[in-house]
Amino acid sequence: MLVNKQHYRSIWAKPWAANGRASVAIIDQTKLPHAFEVLNIAELAQMEVAIKTMQVRGAPLIGAAAAYGLALAAQLDSSDDGLQAAAQRLRLSRPTAVNLDWAVSRLLKLILAVPQADRARLAWAEAQTICDEDVLQNQAIGQHGLALIKQGQSTPYNVLTQCNAGWLATVDVGTALAPIYAAYQAGIALHVWVDETRPRNQGASLTAWELGQHGIAHTVISDNAGGHLMQQGLVDMVLVGADRVSRAGDVCNKIGTYLKALAAFDNGVPFYAAVPSPSIDWTLSDALTEIEIEQRHGDEVAYMQGLAMDGSLQSVRLIPSASNTANPAFDVTPARLVTGIITEHGVFSPANLHGAKPVA
Amino acid sequence: MLVNKQHYRSIWAKPWAANGRASVAIIDQTKLPHAFEVLNIAELAQMEVAIKTMQVRGAPLIGAAAAYGLALAAQLDSSDDGLQAAAQRLRLSRPTAVNLDWAVSRLLKLILAVPQADRARLAWAEAQTICDEDVLQNQAIGQHGLALIKQGQSTPYNVLTQCNAGWLATVDVGTALAPIYAAYQAGIALHVWVDETRPRNQGASLTAWELGQHGIAHTVISDNAGGHLMQQGLVDMVLVGADRVSRAGDVCNKIGTYLKALAAFDNGVPFYAAVPSPSIDWTLSDALTEIEIEQRHGDEVAYMQGLAMDGSLQSVRLIPSASNTANPAFDVTPARLVTGIITEHGVFSPANLHGAKPVA
Repeated sequence: MLVNKQHYRSIWAKPWAANGRASVAIIDQTKLPHAFEVLNIAELAQMEVAIKTMQVRGAPLIGAAAAYGLALAAQLDSSDDGLQAAAQRLRLSRPTAVNLDWAVSRLLKLILAVPQADRARLAWAEAQTICDEDVLQNQAIGQHGLALIKQGQSTPYNVLTQCNAGWLATVDVGTALAPIYAAYQAGIALHVWVDETRPRNQGASLTAWELGQHGIAHTVISDNAGGHLMQQGLVDMVLVGADRVSRAGDVCNKIGTYLKALAAFDNGVPFYAAVPSPSIDWTLSDALTEIEIEQRHGDEVAYMQGLAMDGSLQSVRLIPSASNTANPAFDVTPARLVTGIITEHGVFSPANLHGAKPVA
Repeated sequence: MLVNKQHYRSIWAKPWAANGRASVAIIDQTKLPHAFEVLNIAELAQMEVAIKTMQVRGAPLIGAAAAYGLALAAQLDSSDDGLQAAAQRLRLSRPTAVNLDWAVSRLLKLILAVPQADRARLAWAEAQTICDEDVLQNQAIGQHGLALIKQGQSTPYNVLTQCNAGWLATVDVGTALAPIYAAYQAGIALHVWVDETRPRNQGASLTAWELGQHGIAHTVISDNAGGHLMQQGLVDMVLVGADRVSRAGDVCNKIGTYLKALAAFDNGVPFYAAVPSPSIDWTLSDALTEIEIEQRHGDEVAYMQGLAMDGSLQSVRLIPSASNTANPAFDVTPARLVTGIITEHGVFSPANLHGAKPVA
């Protein structure tokens, strides 16, 4: 989508350089929204760091980044052992990221089957394919979500979102924000309420930035404000991404999503999660009891990073030195609060979610 | 309550000095939790600043501070005109604070009725009385709330609270935290989940600090986490203060309270608001439609203050320079989600709230 009126993806291959090797460009998301910096990634080790330090984040983007990481490794050592070792390093860079393992395994299987001399070029082509597939999938999600927004009567149409499920979390277009970009493209007047999304502030820093760069009207609010806005009739739809969806339609997403779903239900506001269909876990029936919620480091609650008066990025401590914190990263919104799941195949109520299931 | 193992109130009179004039001590709450600084307030103008800049905050404490502000003024000019002018300055220092106007009017009426020579001493005595009444009222709230906690079976008993309705918001003991201090005093094992309470972070900075200083086990969480904790059975009671309660039992409190009440209701967790009975507005029937919610400055959402690495207090910007913010300060929890209102007269379900009404 747009940055400074130019189109960008969150990751892209760079032309073959004088040394005969290609490299990859990423946007350093740890600097957003205060600085827009493109990093050149020329080696596997740099991609490992980018994934570990969350310069790239968001499940689909991590998958794409890992695929390019393996392609970078293949340029230098395309032996079976070399590629297996590179794959392992990438898998360990963010162990819980399902897309990472999926992308690495897909690429590895493909290139190990061809002669060593062909592996690097094939790896580059396949990484590109993974990226393009992600974009097509998200565009389809956008069109299905757009149909829902078109049914709304309000002007502007107010969408509330949590965290960042925008193009920065994917290769382009985003998942939850895909219908919003599609609606903007279709000329529909809309406005987005952006939950700041403590403790990591992905809403305030990433969602607000990408919507602003694209020219979409939005307002950042504290995570506490959404319920009140719904009581006042100021929200027409809650639209979020999801890390995983159970086959019953339970939505596992960024902590705090459940509270917004409760408020949506209490005020008759539709609640949708937008996900690529592979994020539906058909082995999962009751997400509340079957998913173990990641507990992240308490310092994310104790500290907050932002732009200091002198223009530097600084971290400030918010809590007393003697106080403890807890930091569950996700919560589960039970299917009974979910109006529908938007996938690349269409919009499905929890009861009809099997319609999004791949034919075996 | 305790600070560094010594008992403090949030405001107290200091002995007559060599110049024959008394002064007042307050805790500078803008420095908490990172520094504990006691300020000496010797003149009306200093008290005005303390109220305006929120060195003192919380409705009951603002009332007490204003009473002492008028007593300070009376030492220098106890004429009718002088006292009326001082009262007006105090009323304008925080126009929407109901307790401020109440305390100033009470003091003014009393001292204008006596000879000018007696006014200063009477003003001091009455300010002291206002403080003592607040403490007694809060202790009664604590005992009624303690009875509820004693009915709980869990060890430790887990209370979740929002914002700061502790002793720092009152003269001592607090409202929502009064039952917690009473339970601690009674030897009951308990633990408090402290919502950080964006955007002003009163939970992370004030509630966490006062509980920690008193020795009460607590954990600071993002405002997003409470619903998940309730789903996991980790909350036995939600207990908050309130700015106003309608005669139907609707609770107007810090933004985000409604979301926690929804989660409590959804998980069968009791939800209580603790307030002095004068905070019940008997003229108010439907708080959702009749209360206008204060919209505070958007910079509270855009910036966050904390302790920088160099030990200074710094404010950092969280959002893109081009993004807007909205900042509703309160929300309304409908009575249907409220288990009970704890006042100094007892615990009342919304349907029986008239039991807390003063006899006309």
